[in-house]
Amino acid sequence: MNVFSYRPAPEELSYTFGGRPAVARIAPGTVVEMFTEDCFGGRVRGVDDLPSQVCEFPYLNPVTGPFHVEGAEPGDTLALHFVSIEPARDWAVSTTFPHFGALTATHTTAMLHPPLDEVVWLYEVDAEKRIVRYHARRGDFTVEMPLDPMHGTVGVAPAASEARMTITPDAHGGNMDTPELRAGVTVYLGVNVEGGLFAVGDGHCRQGHGEVCGTAVEAAMNTVVAVELIKGVTTPWPRLEDDEHLMSTGSARPLEDAYRISQHDLVTWSASLTGLDELDAYQLVSQGGEAPVGNVCDTNYTMVAKLPKAYLGGPEIYESAHSRLRTLGEEYLSSR
Amino acid sequence: MNVFSYRPAPEELSYTFGGRPAVARIAPGTVVEMFTEDCFGGRVRGVDDLPSQVCEFPYLNPVTGPFHVEGAEPGDTLALHFVSIEPARDWAVSTTFPHFGALTATHTTAMLHPPLDEVVWLYEVDAEKRIVRYHARRGDFTVEMPLDPMHGTVGVAPAASEARMTITPDAHGGNMDTPELRAGVTVYLGVNVEGGLFAVGDGHCRQGHGEVCGTAVEAAMNTVVAVELIKGVTTPWPRLEDDEHLMSTGSARPLEDAYRISQHDLVTWSASLTGLDELDAYQLVSQGGEAPVGNVCDTNYTMVAKLPKAYLGGPEIYESAHSRLRTLGEEYLSSR
Amino acid sequence: MNVFSYRPAPEELSYTFGGRPAVARIAPGTVVEMFTEDCFGGRVRGVDDLPSQVCEFPYLNPVTGPFHVEGAEPGDTLALHFVSIEPARDWAVSTTFPHFGALTATHTTAMLHPPLDEVVWLYEVDAEKRIVRYHARRGDFTVEMPLDPMHGTVGVAPAASEARMTITPDAHGGNMDTPELRAGVTVYLGVNVEGGLFAVGDGHCRQGHGEVCGTAVEAAMNTVVAVELIKGVTTPWPRLEDDEHLMSTGSARPLEDAYRISQHDLVTWSASLTGLDELDAYQLVSQGGEAPVGNVCDTNYTMVAKLPKAYLGGPEIYESAHSRLRTLGEEYLSSR
Amino acid sequence: MNVFSYRPAPEELSYTFGGRPAVARIAPGTVVEMFTEDCFGGRVRGVDDLPSQVCEFPYLNPVTGPFHVEGAEPGDTLALHFVSIEPARDWAVSTTFPHFGALTATHTTAMLHPPLDEVVWLYEVDAEKRIVRYHARRGDFTVEMPLDPMHGTVGVAPAASEARMTITPDAHGGNMDTPELRAGVTVYLGVNVEGGLFAVGDGHCRQGHGEVCGTAVEAAMNTVVAVELIKGVTTPWPRLEDDEHLMSTGSARPLEDAYRISQHDLVTWSASLTGLDELDAYQLVSQGGEAPVGNVCDTNYTMVAKLPKAYLGGPEIYESAHSRLRTLGEEYLSSR
Repeated sequence: MNVFSYRPAPEELSYTFGGRPAVARIAPGTVVEMFTEDCFGGRVRGVDDLPSQVCEFPYLNPVTGPFHVEGAEPGDTLALHFVSIEPARDWAVSTTFPHFGALTATHTTAMLHPPLDEVVWLYEVDAEKRIVRYHARRGDFTVEMPLDPMHGTVGVAPAASEARMTITPDAHGGNMDTPELRAGVTVYLGVNVEGGLFAVGDGHCRQGHGEVCGTAVEAAMNTVVAVELIKGVTTPWPRLEDDEHLMSTGSARPLEDAYRISQHDLVTWSASLTGLDELDAYQLVSQGGEAPVGNVCDTNYTMVAKLPKAYLGGPEIYESAHSRLRTLGEEYLSSR
Repeated sequence: MNVFSYRPAPEELSYTFGGRPAVARIAPGTVVEMFTEDCFGGRVRGVDDLPSQVCEFPYLNPVTGPFHVEGAEPGDTLALHFVSIEPARDWAVSTTFPHFGALTATHTTAMLHPPLDEVVWLYEVDAEKRIVRYHARRGDFTVEMPLDPMHGTVGVAPAASEARMTITPDAHGGNMDTPELRAGVTVYLGVNVEGGLFAVGDGHCRQGHGEVCGTAVEAAMNTVVAVELIKGVTTPWPRLEDDEHLMSTGSARPLEDAYRISQHDLVTWSASLTGLDELDAYQLVSQGGEAPVGNVCDTNYTMVAKLPKAYLGGPEIYESAHSRLRTLGEEYLSSR
Repeated sequence: MNVFSYRPAPEELSYTFGGRPAVARIAPGTVVEMFTEDCFGGRVRGVDDLPSQVCEFPYLNPVTGPFHVEGAEPGDTLALHFVSIEPARDWAVSTTFPHFGALTATHTTAMLHPPLDEVVWLYEVDAEKRIVRYHARRGDFTVEMPLDPMHGTVGVAPAASEARMTITPDAHGGNMDTPELRAGVTVYLGVNVEGGLFAVGDGHCRQGHGEVCGTAVEAAMNTVVAVELIKGVTTPWPRLEDDEHLMSTGSARPLEDAYRISQHDLVTWSASLTGLDELDAYQLVSQGGEAPVGNVCDTNYTMVAKLPKAYLGGPEIYESAHSRLRTLGEEYLSSR
Repeated sequence: MNVFSYRPAPEELSYTFGGRPAVARIAPGTVVEMFTEDCFGGRVRGVDDLPSQVCEFPYLNPVTGPFHVEGAEPGDTLALHFVSIEPARDWAVSTTFPHFGALTATHTTAMLHPPLDEVVWLYEVDAEKRIVRYHARRGDFTVEMPLDPMHGTVGVAPAASEARMTITPDAHGGNMDTPELRAGVTVYLGVNVEGGLFAVGDGHCRQGHGEVCGTAVEAAMNTVVAVELIKGVTTPWPRLEDDEHLMSTGSARPLEDAYRISQHDLVTWSASLTGLDELDAYQLVSQGGEAPVGNVCDTNYTMVAKLPKAYLGGPEIYESAHSRLRTLGEEYLSSR
């Protein structure tokens, strides 16, 4: 088994997709073990560490990578199977941030309000019990919620020679912030530049739908990704697959356009997988599909369109990359 | 037990919330058995019954009611517990409709495209096996999906002397089209006029998130609703409660505003139920909340914000109306 | 000349389009002299009259009417030519209002911010000099701006048995808040119910594009409207005509949908007036059209699409109603 | 007078803001004479040159530059005064383009419609008569419209190490597509990287509000820009100034956010120019401001907020750069 381990030094973190050379080259079939910092670069460590004071724009939401996948060319698809995503520390943080979030004026939903209070919440992370513990800041209320680790950010270098801040989700991936991106899931990303140049970051111990306050339970992660390259197959927007579902994503504003992109991709993808007429697929997705909300706070909003594979008769998807990578991931895990 | 049965004659169906006198008066505590027609008024019965030909605007999406609840006054809240929702026929239909749906130009998202094809799908409904059967129109693909009956439309007369088409969801309820509105759920609606004047319609055998093609698996229903009146308690937007969750709804455009309304209501409601500071509630909902999409096709879009009651320590909600009505519903069901 | 004068008593003011009987019947060809109250019902008379204290929801934005036009039936169009719009007092007011306006959180763009300060500005209105005078509230800055009187609200009873608050603009007209609706302009409104039931209100001494703070320079008006009925001609959305331009309106959210509706109507209307192919008209409007913003603060936003008639070769529009009504208006004015 | 002439070879054209080295260095105070290609790279020369066939993504919307302004550092502002903008050829083109424009499904407003027909319109440009001549493609209708040359695209390298396609407008400028950007106007752009790296392109002989079909009357231009550097003064979003008005721009989706950004900037800028309280400035802009629509077709939409300088008492703006550059431009013109 080809295993590659990478732990970035702070100065090796990336803040854009595109515009940066690879930190490493890996062959398809490699299992990559990586450490990812939290979205604050690890600088928010207690309730007095206000992000607007301890962090510096644009050094937010660092990603680990980019990784050059050998042989990847525009027109191909990278398959990234998340074998495991585990919190690297026994704590995590969440915050409000001035003029960021869904229930506050922002720089684009510009208003004359002063910002809401900037507050930090420190969570205890119990990886054994599989819970995180919330503590109210103003009062003594506390509650446990299930640990459900995920990555907010995964993507490749964009098309058209663009470089985009890691905080922005778009057709190249980026900060989609969907809780669907958990261990056991394969992410498909269309390759735009030689090597693809994928990167991963923004681990969350858990996240509500929409990340309404702007941040999740933010944590550094030890993450294992098994990589495949699917030659000659394009992918217009990031897609996900787990054992039971296929999923399409869309990232745009307003939110209905994120919904439209994801549903449109799921409908046309379903039609192409099955030979169904497009309107027949439209109908089937209309009745059988789910639409988990990703984020409603980032520079683009993200929606996921999700359908049980069984509703399509269990078609072959991306040359069965998911089941192959799942097996590879199990082999990796049983070898540790 | 006070049981009231009502089956509307076709000419008794309503097409607006507001602007119509009650069809009946009921006392709080009543269990109402009602028949509701499907959104096409029962006129689409086969694949050749194109809705644009057999239906006539504005006679779409009929509701059963309105019912006057004795003693209801502006400033009160109606609690409607859906005891059971059962398909009244062994078939159901879904269709595309010219310039209606999420992946088509519409009268407001106005474009120069001709409409997509108008197509009808006829579903078999097997109430015993609890499935519906989809058949592709162009090809012989077929698949079973779980029966999961719900009502797209429930509401009261609006405030400010308005009368609104039943197809429009807003603060008074209406055509929210959320799959969360299934049997076992209690809906809370703020009373705007004397008697409240609630009505129910638009049964779906099941529905995907967003009702992307514009219609669900549309069916006439035999539905049982247990009614309570909560005096002196206001409800700004429709809220739902099931055994495990509290839910807020928001209906607006663009979709992020529906999201904002629902999340804002859930945050402020959670704060008021628990005494939590508003930002503490914002944080808790951000990590623990779900955001099931209602519709992304109607004149307003609908989002639901949903939180496990356990995360709030199981507070008393609406004077425990849900558990009382749930018990009443069980008594009703066991008495049949 | 058939002249009808009407000055409503306070209890005769209307707060909805639809849902109310006519205050008077008039024959086509009539010149109607009317008084309209300001949007606060005349209750805000000085800087200490905060609207949230002196006004009571839903008694805001009163309109004068509705007027029944004899012979008007669904499928017809009313032509309302604004002969003159003159401030009825030598003062006017504008205000911020809690959670209302474009640069504040609102009930639908729901956020956790407290409202902006509620402030009243009192304007001097000099009808002879044709100016209004602004005074800053915090400081002694003052400036004169041209008097440019208009009506924010004009409409008919909606279709589908709806009744809508006067504050909402939609296909029936309503609170479009476009500065294009000044004296010399003819408004075309599709008739939805017998008699049409038009009403007029919400005079502004002037208004910026979008009415960004939520209110204009609000004033009671003495207004003269010349009325024609165009039989058998439908009008999907309110249209306007002045001596040089034809204009279409659209009211919706998000703002791009208001833009789309108005541009779509202008394109298809231009094509039908000239025989141009639809794409040729699309091209012509793309290069020759203007898009004055109406409001970006009401429950729907309003955009206007505007094209010089000369670019279409000066086609006959609505059976030349505008030039006829313009002549009638001039006769009326010269007879005073 | 320091005059610099630059005519790019085809391979010197740029397709991004950021991510490219400067083509030349110029000193503040320089008058730059430049040639800019049209948005199709000059490849659409007749009605049979369909852009989807003769152009290749992402080689669309080329800009001339970027130019490094000596001494420019982050935190400074570039002032670009457009001395003249003159069509370089006696023809211009406009087109529909598959899934691009305001009245068509697009890649983000994703729908199941096939694209509208792709059509090219060839305009005659008469620089002496100052007109362009439109010819319908399907029929023999023709009309003259005023020549009103402008640049759709002007910007600098973005912040945060981003590189953006020239077709995208955002805080760095880019493809704002506002007709306000004509000769006689000074554009202010905040500097994000050393040298600023401004570039200009996408000349239009004229454009309607919103560029509704997706393209204007597209033309190569000979353009003269006088450049100043304003040290230590930041500019959050592109601003414009002409002899009579100050203007703020905003680019975002949905369109109301573009409106909000531009109005918010105009309000806060007006307050800072005059010492007015922010709510007083909000009120003044509400009554005196205009909101010319830029584009409603690009990847972000653009709105402009515009106010007569006289309403603010004629404050000093950007150290009077506009009047200085205007004088310099006049000297340049009289010297030819």
